[in-house]
Amino acid sequence: MIIAGAGFGGITCARALKRVDVDVLLLDRNNYHLFTPLLYQVATALLDPGEIARPVRELIRPLRNVEFRQTEIHGADLQRRLLLTDHGPISYDYLVLATGAQTDYFGNASLERYSFGLKDLDEGLALRNRVLSRFEASRWSKTAEDRKGLLTFAIVGGGPTGVELAGAYSELIRLVLRKDFRDLDMSEVRVILLEAADTILGTFEPELRAAARRSLEQKGVEVMLGARVAEVTRDTLKLASGQEITAGTVIWTAGVRASAVGAALGVELGRQARVKVSPTLQVPGHPAAFVIGDLAFATAGDVPLPLLIPVAMQEARRVAATIADMVHNGGATAFRYRDPGIMATIGRNSAVAELGPVHLSGFLGWLMWLFVHLVNVVSFRSRIVVLVNWAWEYVLFDRPVRLIVRAGDDRRG
Amino acid sequence: MIIAGAGFGGITCARALKRVDVDVLLLDRNNYHLFTPLLYQVATALLDPGEIARPVRELIRPLRNVEFRQTEIHGADLQRRLLLTDHGPISYDYLVLATGAQTDYFGNASLERYSFGLKDLDEGLALRNRVLSRFEASRWSKTAEDRKGLLTFAIVGGGPTGVELAGAYSELIRLVLRKDFRDLDMSEVRVILLEAADTILGTFEPELRAAARRSLEQKGVEVMLGARVAEVTRDTLKLASGQEITAGTVIWTAGVRASAVGAALGVELGRQARVKVSPTLQVPGHPAAFVIGDLAFATAGDVPLPLLIPVAMQEARRVAATIADMVHNGGATAFRYRDPGIMATIGRNSAVAELGPVHLSGFLGWLMWLFVHLVNVVSFRSRIVVLVNWAWEYVLFDRPVRLIVRAGDDRRG
Repeated sequence: MIIAGAGFGGITCARALKRVDVDVLLLDRNNYHLFTPLLYQVATALLDPGEIARPVRELIRPLRNVEFRQTEIHGADLQRRLLLTDHGPISYDYLVLATGAQTDYFGNASLERYSFGLKDLDEGLALRNRVLSRFEASRWSKTAEDRKGLLTFAIVGGGPTGVELAGAYSELIRLVLRKDFRDLDMSEVRVILLEAADTILGTFEPELRAAARRSLEQKGVEVMLGARVAEVTRDTLKLASGQEITAGTVIWTAGVRASAVGAALGVELGRQARVKVSPTLQVPGHPAAFVIGDLAFATAGDVPLPLLIPVAMQEARRVAATIADMVHNGGATAFRYRDPGIMATIGRNSAVAELGPVHLSGFLGWLMWLFVHLVNVVSFRSRIVVLVNWAWEYVLFDRPVRLIVRAGDDRRG
Repeated sequence: MIIAGAGFGGITCARALKRVDVDVLLLDRNNYHLFTPLLYQVATALLDPGEIARPVRELIRPLRNVEFRQTEIHGADLQRRLLLTDHGPISYDYLVLATGAQTDYFGNASLERYSFGLKDLDEGLALRNRVLSRFEASRWSKTAEDRKGLLTFAIVGGGPTGVELAGAYSELIRLVLRKDFRDLDMSEVRVILLEAADTILGTFEPELRAAARRSLEQKGVEVMLGARVAEVTRDTLKLASGQEITAGTVIWTAGVRASAVGAALGVELGRQARVKVSPTLQVPGHPAAFVIGDLAFATAGDVPLPLLIPVAMQEARRVAATIADMVHNGGATAFRYRDPGIMATIGRNSAVAELGPVHLSGFLGWLMWLFVHLVNVVSFRSRIVVLVNWAWEYVLFDRPVRLIVRAGDDRRG
C-alpha cells in the first residue's frame, strides 16, 4: 500500500500501521517531515531548519514494514489503482492520500508574484532572508521615504499564522534588530496585520480575540480590520477600499487550499479544493482510496473539520485501523473528531489557548503553548536545541540565526 | 577608515581597533561571519548554518566605533583613496582589504560547470543537498551501473579540506545513511580522494601524512595519489593519465586563489593572484592601503605565508597596531608570523596535529582538534549547540540535519 505525503497525517498513519500485515511505501516530495507549528520561528530567525524538520528516513527507522521514496506526486488513477508520480505510475492495493495544503492566492496574479507564502521550509528561509536583507538595504538608502518602504512588513490574514508571525516579527525588530542596527529610527519601521473580517482569530472565543489584539498592539503591531487586499505591487499594497499602503514586503497567510493532487483525482471537491470523503474517510466509489488531513473535506455533522494537525493525526489513526480491519476482511468504521482545543502565541509571555471550557491568555496561555510545543517537537535532540534557543532568546532578547543564506545550486550541469 | 571583509582578518582587525580613535566602516557581501573550519560539517549534515555563522552586527555590538554595511566589493582606486562597491565609491583615509580567497578552477570550464566548491555557506548547503539528493535518486534507479554513478563521490585535492571532507562523507555514509537506506548495497558506494602529488597533506610531517592516509583507508575512502584531473563531465572524471572514473558528484578543493578584488587593484600580484605587500602589510606605494589574510601575499624570509586563519588574525592585529600608531603620527612596523601549528581531522576518533615539536595523530590528535575547535566556535550559544550535535553524533552515530532544503527566492517581483 501507499501513503502519499509525510506530514502529520502520513507519518502518523505509517506509525499506526507498524504491527499491521501490510508493506507500506511512504512518498513525499521532500526528504523531511516538518514540524509546521514552528515554521514561523524559522522565518523570524529564531530556529534553524534542522530544529523543526527531521529526515523521514530517521522517523521510519523503527517501522520495519515502511519504505520511503522521495518524489513529486501528481495525482492518482483511482479506477486502475495507480498513483501518478515523477517516477511514473505506481500501483497500490490501498492508498492514503495525505499531501496537505498550499497557499491560495485566489487567482490574484499580483499576490502570487509579489507576496510571500509560509507553508514550507523553503518559504520560511526565503522570508527570513527577505526581512533581514531589507534591513540591510535600508542602511544604504538616502531618504526616509525609501527606508519606510523597505521597512514596512504587511502580514495579510488574521488567523493563527498571521498573528504568530506578526508578533514574532515585531519582537525580532524591537528586541533584536534594534540592537543590531544602532542607527535605526523605529518610527520608520512598521509591522501591519491586515484582516478582511472584523476580528482576528475568528475561530477563538471573543474574549481571547480581544486579548490577542491587545497583546499585538502592545508589541507595536498595527492591526487593521475589515481590510481586504485587492492588489500588491513591488512596493505597495492596495486595499479594496482604495487605500494604498507602502509596503516592501507582503506576507500572505489569508488563503489556503488543498494540494493539487486533490483536483487531479477527478472526484467531487469541497471547499478549498479539498476532496469530499465519506464518513469513513474513503473516496466515494473508491473504497481502496483514503484521504486524510488538509487534503480531506471531512465533516462533523454538517460542520467541515478545520485544517489542523490534531484532525490529520486522528484521521490517520482511524484510517490505519480501518486498513488493519480490511486486511482481515473487516469493514470501514466512521471517523469521529475529538477536539483537543486551539492555541496561538503572540511572542514572549503571551498566547491564547482555548481547551474546551478552559480559556487561557497572556502569560498562562504562553506557558501552556510552550509546554505543548516543546513536548511535541520532532525529536529529543531538537528538543534540547530548541530549548537552548528559546531560553537564549528569552533571557538575552536575542535571535540566534539572523543569517542571510541562500543554498547554492546543487543541480549542476 | 574602511575594513573590506568580515572574515577572520576583518573581524579581528575591527576588534583590535576598539580603543583606537578611528571610525571604522566594516563591509562584507554577507551579513554573517563564517567559522570556515567547520564548513565541511554543514556539507556533511552534522551542523546547521546557524551553528557556524554569526551575524556580523552581533559580533560588533561591543565595538562602539564600528559600523557595518552589507555590499559587494569590486576593487579600489588606491590613487584617489576610493573603495569601489555595489553602492558606489566610498572614500577612506585608511583601508584594510581582507576579502579572502575563492575556489580556483584554473580556467578549466568543465570543472567550473560540473564540480562543487566549498568556500562559503551557500556552497556547503548546496553540497549537503546534492549528496542527500543523490542517495534519494539512487533508490529509483533500476541498474547497478546507474546507482554506482549516482553514489560515487570524488573529492579532488588532498589538503586539509579534501581530507576532512572525505573522512566526513565516508562516516556520513557508513554510519548514518546505511541506517537510513536499509536496502543500500555498500559495494555501490564510493568515496574517492584524488591528489595530484604523491602524498596527501603535503604540508604535514611524513609520519602524520601516513597516519592520515591509513585512517582514511580504514574509513573506506579510496585514496588515489598522482591523479591529476583533466576534465569533468556530468557523470565522469577524466584524469590526465587517460583513466576515466564514473562519478556523479565531484568536489573540487584543489585550487584556491585570492578574491577578485586583488586583481582589480592594478598592483603587483604574487602566486594565487594574491596582492604583494611590503613587510608592514601595506601595498607598495600606497601607505594608506593594507592587505591581510588570504588576499595578501606576505612572506616570512622568502617563504610565502600560507592561507590560514592564524596568519589572517595575526596580520589583522599587526595592521590595527600600525594604524593606531599612524593616527598618532607614528610609522608602520613589520609583521612577523608566529606559527601555532596545523591540524586536520579525519572523522571520529582520528586527527593529525603538528604543534611545533609535538606531533599527534589518532585519538589524541582528535581530542586536541575537538578542544581547539570547540573553544573557537563563534559564540557561546553555538558552542552549546555544536557540543550537543557532536555528542549526539558520537554516541548515536547519527547526523542531525540530513535535510534537503533550498531557500526559496526572496527577491520577488
